[in-house]
Amino acid sequence: MKKSFGAKTIIFPTPAWVVCTYDSNGKANGMTAAWAGVVCSEPPAIGVSVRKSRYSYQCLLDRKAFTVCVPSEKYAREADYFGIASGRDTDKFMESGLTAVRSELVDAPYIGEFPMIVECRLIHHFDLGVHTQFVGEIIDVKVDDDKLNDDGNPDIEKIRPLVYAPTVQQYHGIGPALGRGYRLGKTLK
Amino acid sequence: MKKSFGAKTIIFPTPAWVVCTYDSNGKANGMTAAWAGVVCSEPPAIGVSVRKSRYSYQCLLDRKAFTVCVPSEKYAREADYFGIASGRDTDKFMESGLTAVRSELVDAPYIGEFPMIVECRLIHHFDLGVHTQFVGEIIDVKVDDDKLNDDGNPDIEKIRPLVYAPTVQQYHGIGPALGRGYRLGKTLK
Repeated sequence: MKKSFGAKTIIFPTPAWVVCTYDSNGKANGMTAAWAGVVCSEPPAIGVSVRKSRYSYQCLLDRKAFTVCVPSEKYAREADYFGIASGRDTDKFMESGLTAVRSELVDAPYIGEFPMIVECRLIHHFDLGVHTQFVGEIIDVKVDDDKLNDDGNPDIEKIRPLVYAPTVQQYHGIGPALGRGYRLGKTLK
Repeated sequence: MKKSFGAKTIIFPTPAWVVCTYDSNGKANGMTAAWAGVVCSEPPAIGVSVRKSRYSYQCLLDRKAFTVCVPSEKYAREADYFGIASGRDTDKFMESGLTAVRSELVDAPYIGEFPMIVECRLIHHFDLGVHTQFVGEIIDVKVDDDKLNDDGNPDIEKIRPLVYAPTVQQYHGIGPALGRGYRLGKTLK
């Protein structure tokens, strides 16, 4: 028997990524986003949704660039902090002790300590209601070289990204591997 | 030291959700989507990106409705199958043995066995390149009543949704709880 929850944004899993920008003074800032995901393969693109009231909103429009920084489990506290504080009255990098690294490819900083970074150039923004979705073309993906698997690809079990459960507001880690995409389903019959 | 992977859609985690529609003959169909996420809180909305070549593409445009069905770990094989087969030449529900339940709220079916269902009415579609992003306003969220926590809210550890790692094409389960959103970060200092 299913219980109805009404018209609410309840769905699992969502990510917990930190979207970083420079403000008009050149100060590095970041905000945690769960309303985000890949939106296109070619051009490769990510969408991140930001409320108009957020300090990052104007930074995104002005700089037309952002990075998506993937925290590992050990940075869950910092990731959550970036979702609580506001860049209007806080230097989140200074307060958290994290390092703002200037991207050489886009006009945005990234978090040096985080293991996986996606550098984006703003190509669209869509006003959807209280959130505006900012779509960034992926210019580069950078991953710590000690977080790769034997094939040289990013290893999710080494990166250990966060999973966020909205409504219940809980962060989780990644669990055990369950099978390979485009293979598991072939064993159905 | 970070290694560059270039302009690729590599980011963790992404979801593995099955987007269900009716085709022009009224046949229930579904496709697995990892390029998807919440995009707005008010109106509550989800975005799912679909290639023009997919059978679901025209179904979404014609029916202007879809459901997002969240598989639990035990349905990882079926979820992957829905990403491999095409509704053009297959009845995926018949082949997989899953049950297509007609939504009473939108013109789309949902997968009865999956623990979490989001029913959506199409409100936007954005041509982004090889993918079109379909944005659906959430009309209702339904969750199996044995998958709720003591507060009556959906419990991610009971629902056990899939996490997908693109590029390495691996499904994972949910790991241990790491802390509460909007609370963990307050302990930073």
